[in-house]
Amino acid sequence: MLPSESIERVVELFASLPTIGKKTARRLAFHLLRQSANDVDSFAAALVEMRLRVRECAQCHTFTDTELCGICASEKRSPSVICVVEQPSDVMAIERTGDFRGRYHVLHGTLSPLDGIGPEDLRLKELIARLGAEVDELILALNPTVEGEVTTQYIAKLASPLSIRVTRIARGVPMGSDLEFADDATLARAFEGRTPV
Amino acid sequence: MLPSESIERVVELFASLPTIGKKTARRLAFHLLRQSANDVDSFAAALVEMRLRVRECAQCHTFTDTELCGICASEKRSPSVICVVEQPSDVMAIERTGDFRGRYHVLHGTLSPLDGIGPEDLRLKELIARLGAEVDELILALNPTVEGEVTTQYIAKLASPLSIRVTRIARGVPMGSDLEFADDATLARAFEGRTPV
Repeated sequence: MLPSESIERVVELFASLPTIGKKTARRLAFHLLRQSANDVDSFAAALVEMRLRVRECAQCHTFTDTELCGICASEKRSPSVICVVEQPSDVMAIERTGDFRGRYHVLHGTLSPLDGIGPEDLRLKELIARLGAEVDELILALNPTVEGEVTTQYIAKLASPLSIRVTRIARGVPMGSDLEFADDATLARAFEGRTPV
Repeated sequence: MLPSESIERVVELFASLPTIGKKTARRLAFHLLRQSANDVDSFAAALVEMRLRVRECAQCHTFTDTELCGICASEKRSPSVICVVEQPSDVMAIERTGDFRGRYHVLHGTLSPLDGIGPEDLRLKELIARLGAEVDELILALNPTVEGEVTTQYIAKLASPLSIRVTRIARGVPMGSDLEFADDATLARAFEGRTPV
């Protein structure tokens, strides 16, 4: 017996989000029912406003509220190094390290012929257009997956006629892990990419 | 560097919900940004509508869209047995078993003097008002916690002048569990509540 159609609808919508199962969805719905109507209204308004205001940065295509994102607009960030990533969330992950002082380019995906995702579905044209004289290095920081690898090779080939250094981030054993439990592919890459001490 | 104030606001709101941490909140926000504006609008509208439409059932005080909930309105459910629970989500958990054919009463909490929750903060007056001649049995199905225990004893005392059978659900070892790992309190209750085979 359904207690309420409008609760069930919210439960279904929550359960359609990633990482949220039916049980958690139900818990979230009941939590909101215990909040004031005002709080729920401003929660809903925040979602609508976010979807309305957020767009892609005109230069690097990460998510932003403004024409240019804070990184592209900052004079402190070097325009001579561009780090290519798959998603806006990858920009945030790299920013958290605080080490990278260049700029980004977000592809919004990877090449995946099986899913019908070709070069024209990514922000590749826009990347090539950015590769002017001021760019010295292109760092490819795509996920270490088959699609990430294909896309890495594709971009390296695209950039090869230009006199730009194209690098990729190292693949190897993650910090704090145990060699004993590292998978074969990771260990093989770690040996391949060994560096002088 | 914050990528967008409106994203950060949604991330904070999601992270304020139970079971959702900062990382998941971020993932949910990015997921919504990849949906169409229409989809996000109807998600937001569903939240607002739920909060607006859902109220407490006039009789049992569970959440419902209508004056009386489906269970209280159903002629198939016996009015002679009332099962008392803490929250509307408990009603749904018991309904899932499909075994109980009586009606419910939702307290919306438990007595908790330390948190300043007294009898007047629960739907206790409303429960006593329902205990007319047609009620034979009151089943107390509160959580096996200190607060649940205090509330159970309180209700049993309230109901004692009336000629109503007051029972509580069994506390013991859960199905499929291992005696070896059962805690002392649970095992003690299981022995106390033993039944003839």
